[in-house]
Amino acid sequence: MTHERSTPGTIHGVGLGPGSQDLMSVRADRLIRGASHVAYFRKKGRTGHARRIVDGMLASDAIELPMEYPVTTEIPFDDPRYNALLAAFYERSVAQLCEIAEAGRDVVVLCEGDPFFYGSFMHLYTRLQGRVPVAVVPGITGMSAAWTATGQPVTWGDDILTVLMGTLPEATLSERIAETDALVVMKIGRHLDKLRRALASSGREDEAWLIEYAAMPQQRIRPFREVDESVPYFSIVVIHGNGRRP
Amino acid sequence: MTHERSTPGTIHGVGLGPGSQDLMSVRADRLIRGASHVAYFRKKGRTGHARRIVDGMLASDAIELPMEYPVTTEIPFDDPRYNALLAAFYERSVAQLCEIAEAGRDVVVLCEGDPFFYGSFMHLYTRLQGRVPVAVVPGITGMSAAWTATGQPVTWGDDILTVLMGTLPEATLSERIAETDALVVMKIGRHLDKLRRALASSGREDEAWLIEYAAMPQQRIRPFREVDESVPYFSIVVIHGNGRRP
Repeated sequence: MTHERSTPGTIHGVGLGPGSQDLMSVRADRLIRGASHVAYFRKKGRTGHARRIVDGMLASDAIELPMEYPVTTEIPFDDPRYNALLAAFYERSVAQLCEIAEAGRDVVVLCEGDPFFYGSFMHLYTRLQGRVPVAVVPGITGMSAAWTATGQPVTWGDDILTVLMGTLPEATLSERIAETDALVVMKIGRHLDKLRRALASSGREDEAWLIEYAAMPQQRIRPFREVDESVPYFSIVVIHGNGRRP
Repeated sequence: MTHERSTPGTIHGVGLGPGSQDLMSVRADRLIRGASHVAYFRKKGRTGHARRIVDGMLASDAIELPMEYPVTTEIPFDDPRYNALLAAFYERSVAQLCEIAEAGRDVVVLCEGDPFFYGSFMHLYTRLQGRVPVAVVPGITGMSAAWTATGQPVTWGDDILTVLMGTLPEATLSERIAETDALVVMKIGRHLDKLRRALASSGREDEAWLIEYAAMPQQRIRPFREVDESVPYFSIVVIHGNGRRP
């Protein structure tokens, strides 16, 4: 007697890496090419960045499940409606994923970068716990692609690396930038001017590099002081450490 | 008229990721399987961890170039002889790599984790600049594998992540651990007791996890407070952030 019909499928949160298909892991590549069900987040009406990364890799009969954000930047983070809307959206997405897994099918959820590193998948992951099996495949982070693009090692010896989000208050940014050896700042977008002031007040603007679309065809690398226009969402600031080096 | 004979080969610094073959990137996998020359660091008399990761992947006629450290822990870091010995070793290794590249052949240098993130390849990389072409393939970091192994996302919302080396002074460790949201500590080994005191004095020992051999067959995950014996070189401490989560 077998129980195959009642064995639930697994939800795989798969790190896609920074955006180049050959920088995804061999495990991710296999899971994505073999997937019967592929889910991904996207903004309403867009293809979605995660989906675009896997263009040409999905099986012709793969079933796609776009999960469309009800809100992105229209409502500020600190508005209680923002949290309520997102929480309901994550619950709906989880219900949909569980339904497929409970029918015995695996689902691959496409995750930009590394799923557990500032990713959206975490909001599904915590809600899936105890309901269906979940597996996570780590990925190359966008910041690894960014510092690789600069052609300079980011950390040496016992350098301290600090990773900050551009969404932090200016005073926090300034203080943390002043006291670290190596630095990564992500989620810059609309926070560019605040970040510029924080880099200046910490005396480190001249050490900073801005990397746009690291590892993607549009990749662009500039000293931060040469940036005056707005920058795209996929922008990362890097300051290289300068530690012990024989 | 062609100049094929005088076109130099490329030195590829290839990130292997955390240690599982299927967690290396598709690009790394292709480069390693197709390599005619494969170089890697190792301790004298050992196979070397990087070499062990690629077991079974190398072409049967690949030429291997082990680069054997003249010193690892026998002389302290701050002894001037340590730097002199290592610098001479890196110069010799670079001369050997350049000779092959100048003869028109590519060399794949195996790098654990991500080459530009606290790696040894950087010491070759800076010395190779301007001599022969060099390309770097980023990899999944050991810390990504470590936090994935804990089954909990490491950073949420605008959490601050700090990466510290166990080699830092106790006061620095304690201060930085106290003021970060999420934490990674690497290079723990002989610094375990100092790290324990720093975690205790910053009041965060109970939040810390110790991950040994992340993504490798011997992987082991424990709350840090349950660790009393010594820990292997491939050990990472993680404290998870606790930021905004709808």
